[in-house]
Amino acid sequence: MGSKEITGTHFDEASGVADILEKDRLESEKWTKKKHISEQPWTLQNWHQHINWLNVVLVVAIPMIGAWMARSTPLKWQTAAMSVFLYACAGWSITGGYHRLWSHKAYDAHWPLRVFFALFGAAAVEGSIKWWGHSHRIHHRYTDTNRDPYDARKGFWYSHMGWMLTKPNPKYKARADISDLIDDWIVRFQHRHYLAIMFFMSYIFPTLVCGYLFNDYKGGFVYAGILRACFIQQATFCVNSLAHWIGVQPFDDRRTPRDHVLTALVTMGEGYHNFHHEFPSDYRNAIKWYQYDPTKVLIYLCSCVGLAYNLKTFSQNAIEQGLVQQQQKKLDRMRAKLNWGAPLSALPIWDKSEFIEKCKTETGLVTINGIVHDVSGYISEHPGGEPLLLASVGKDATKAFNGGVYLHSNAAHNLLATMRVAVIRDSFAQKRAENELKKQN
Amino acid sequence: MGSKEITGTHFDEASGVADILEKDRLESEKWTKKKHISEQPWTLQNWHQHINWLNVVLVVAIPMIGAWMARSTPLKWQTAAMSVFLYACAGWSITGGYHRLWSHKAYDAHWPLRVFFALFGAAAVEGSIKWWGHSHRIHHRYTDTNRDPYDARKGFWYSHMGWMLTKPNPKYKARADISDLIDDWIVRFQHRHYLAIMFFMSYIFPTLVCGYLFNDYKGGFVYAGILRACFIQQATFCVNSLAHWIGVQPFDDRRTPRDHVLTALVTMGEGYHNFHHEFPSDYRNAIKWYQYDPTKVLIYLCSCVGLAYNLKTFSQNAIEQGLVQQQQKKLDRMRAKLNWGAPLSALPIWDKSEFIEKCKTETGLVTINGIVHDVSGYISEHPGGEPLLLASVGKDATKAFNGGVYLHSNAAHNLLATMRVAVIRDSFAQKRAENELKKQN
Ligand code: HEM
Ligand code: HEM
Ligand SMILES: [Fe+2]
Ligand SMILES: [Fe+2]
Ligand SMILES: [Fe+2]
Ligand SMILES: [Fe+2]
Repeated sequence: MGSKEITGTHFDEASGVADILEKDRLESEKWTKKKHISEQPWTLQNWHQHINWLNVVLVVAIPMIGAWMARSTPLKWQTAAMSVFLYACAGWSITGGYHRLWSHKAYDAHWPLRVFFALFGAAAVEGSIKWWGHSHRIHHRYTDTNRDPYDARKGFWYSHMGWMLTKPNPKYKARADISDLIDDWIVRFQHRHYLAIMFFMSYIFPTLVCGYLFNDYKGGFVYAGILRACFIQQATFCVNSLAHWIGVQPFDDRRTPRDHVLTALVTMGEGYHNFHHEFPSDYRNAIKWYQYDPTKVLIYLCSCVGLAYNLKTFSQNAIEQGLVQQQQKKLDRMRAKLNWGAPLSALPIWDKSEFIEKCKTETGLVTINGIVHDVSGYISEHPGGEPLLLASVGKDATKAFNGGVYLHSNAAHNLLATMRVAVIRDSFAQKRAENELKKQN
Repeated sequence: MGSKEITGTHFDEASGVADILEKDRLESEKWTKKKHISEQPWTLQNWHQHINWLNVVLVVAIPMIGAWMARSTPLKWQTAAMSVFLYACAGWSITGGYHRLWSHKAYDAHWPLRVFFALFGAAAVEGSIKWWGHSHRIHHRYTDTNRDPYDARKGFWYSHMGWMLTKPNPKYKARADISDLIDDWIVRFQHRHYLAIMFFMSYIFPTLVCGYLFNDYKGGFVYAGILRACFIQQATFCVNSLAHWIGVQPFDDRRTPRDHVLTALVTMGEGYHNFHHEFPSDYRNAIKWYQYDPTKVLIYLCSCVGLAYNLKTFSQNAIEQGLVQQQQKKLDRMRAKLNWGAPLSALPIWDKSEFIEKCKTETGLVTINGIVHDVSGYISEHPGGEPLLLASVGKDATKAFNGGVYLHSNAAHNLLATMRVAVIRDSFAQKRAENELKKQN
């Protein structure tokens, strides 16, 4: 990742709404006429045209060479420690810099921090800030659609690496506004000199540091350079795959993003992805104190020493609204699966005299709350005993049932509803039945 | 516990509803005229009249004597093991027999099991089945009222032991139907000879067993007799105190019963008390496989060997209905605490022309879904960038907001609601406003 080709996407510098839609339309039209390689089946003849070879080199080949070299390179503990340290620097630059600062403007940062993020972010070998931020904004704007670069509906492997190892369909090319990114001279500078900065920061700098400090040039190159970069890449890719794959959806389950502590552990805290897609400009990913989000902690600490400022959080009100709405959805689904008794509007309507008449031939009819119930099957089951229930049969037991003798539980009311037979004319229940009918129409 | 006085309560053998209510009324009337000792303040002169001395002896004095004797009685491991065994027999007889079989008819049992429960239940020194079952049914019928014998609203101590160590107010004497108990000859026999059975089973039998088997008469009396009985008593009392005090309320929170694993551990599985008060005739207290309910397991095993049969469970439907309703209550409470934006019916109604007019002087007005919003404070905050939002100001952005440009999340809709300014005349929003008003009236 990091080629001119893929970082050279065109975008709108100051886009009007109509403008954007028009450009999207034209682009897609152009490509409905031609047939792009990505729309052709893989064959023995054309398979190499499907592949994005530069990315294969950066993400697959170089790491494999690194692994091969590691077999003949002893690992010094100092070099191991430096690898971990450089891993953390690059990781934080991606999550705290590329992602939360530049892609989402979740806070502002002074130039020393931005320079740090730009340099060590390049060491992650994931493209320039400008390209990364643009793709990422498109991912948020078009999540789970054909325009989503890492469309998780296409499976774990596609969203993890498949999308970058093959050529995308230009019909689904998309845009996002990144005028704010271009306004930042550090972003512009990093983008212009990206290949040089990337090679220096990811391979040469670790080699020199480990060579100079521990006299371990080869170990520095292999472990602190190549393999460290590979680990960072795989960890970051997990945000596109794992975070759209495993975990819970406390805020919205209409799309794929999910919250999982495992993803958080792998990605320096980017694992609460359901929250993140819902509240992308919040500088936090984890909102509970016990959830793992070291990137949030770093940003907070930077704000304490004045390097970061203007940290944005979504209002607690909006966050809790999301939780309530999603829980309501789940509850409604559970409710729909249960038997709540016949709807009142589906029952016949009886006069009181009709009820008295019926009781002469049928045993077990009792009126409660204006509704006639057939309790004959329940008499021996009644937790309050047979005698009380038997004494109420053939009568209006509304009072007795509602506290006169015993104030029944919800459970009792629910059971009662499953025994409905008819509605008494001119009762409150009849009004409820009428209201039910009105709502249906 | 176990005196004639407290087991001699009168009750209705085959009670009609009107009958019951009338008797309750008469009793309470009688005692509103006189002033019972329980209604007088405790003084140096009358304190001894407040006390139920027999219970003090059985529940406090004898255990204290037992503890005193234990100081000079070495504990043999065989006697300790026998104490635990007899503890389990008595405990199971109370929970599986007194409680679930007789008080709640949660299943039926053949006579050998009933005889076992009647004998070892007496060894718990908690009164006869007839008295216990009657009090317990009253507790369920009048939970958290003055008529509840162990009224948990009066505090932990009162519901644990206080109620039995003092004299109750006869004004609040209550009844429950126990005709089914009286129909059982084992219940009748145990009640008639209760004092003898109780003394034999709780003190003499353990003494003889430990004496005969391990030549440890004194240890048997102290440990397997007195102290074991004291432990059983305290454990059972926890169902009235602890189970109404600590834990969660997944089924109904209008009354005090609660579910807690700690209570379950102490009481051989009677700790899921919120469930139990809601579904009293279910032979289970714990419905999840990982919850601790050895009494349920015992009943189930007895049914496998044919000693128990007709095990009752509430329908899964009714149980899930209870869960859904309680969760809905909690959710509604959360919802009520949040800001959902001004109600549409409280907003002024604008013509479209009025909106266009206003936009000439005010910046930041935008119409979405027939509602005018003031987004001026949000432009720099917008996660989708300033340009897009700025391009929509002064216009109807319904389409753009709802997927034309970006299909906004719930969170975005919620935020939008907090920016409401007016409703557009003849829009769908105006109809919603009218419906709101109708519901209020
Ligand atoms: C078919 C109608 C009825 C149903 C489905 C029903 C259901 C129940 C249920 C499920 C309970 C267990 C406790 C609770 O959930 O609140 C209960 C207890 C009770 N019921 Fe009913 N009941 C019915 C009618 C009546 C009537 C008409 C009376 C009185 C005349 C009555 C008197 C009692 C009493 C006193 C209890 C308390 C028993 C205890 O908890 O120990 N029930 N009933
Ligand atoms: C005051 C009205 C608006 C509010 C409160 C609002 C709120 C939001 C919020 C909270 C997000 C974050 C993602 C999400 O929650 O779905 C978002 C994203 C977005 N909004 Fe808006 N929005 C408004 C108006 C608009 C308008 C009128 C447009 C287009 C003309 C627009 C375009 C976008 C786009 C493209 C994104 C995606 C950005 C991303 O997730 O990277 N918004 N908006
Ligand atoms: Fe995502
Ligand atoms: Fe993001
Ligand atoms: Fe209780
Ligand atoms: Fe009970």
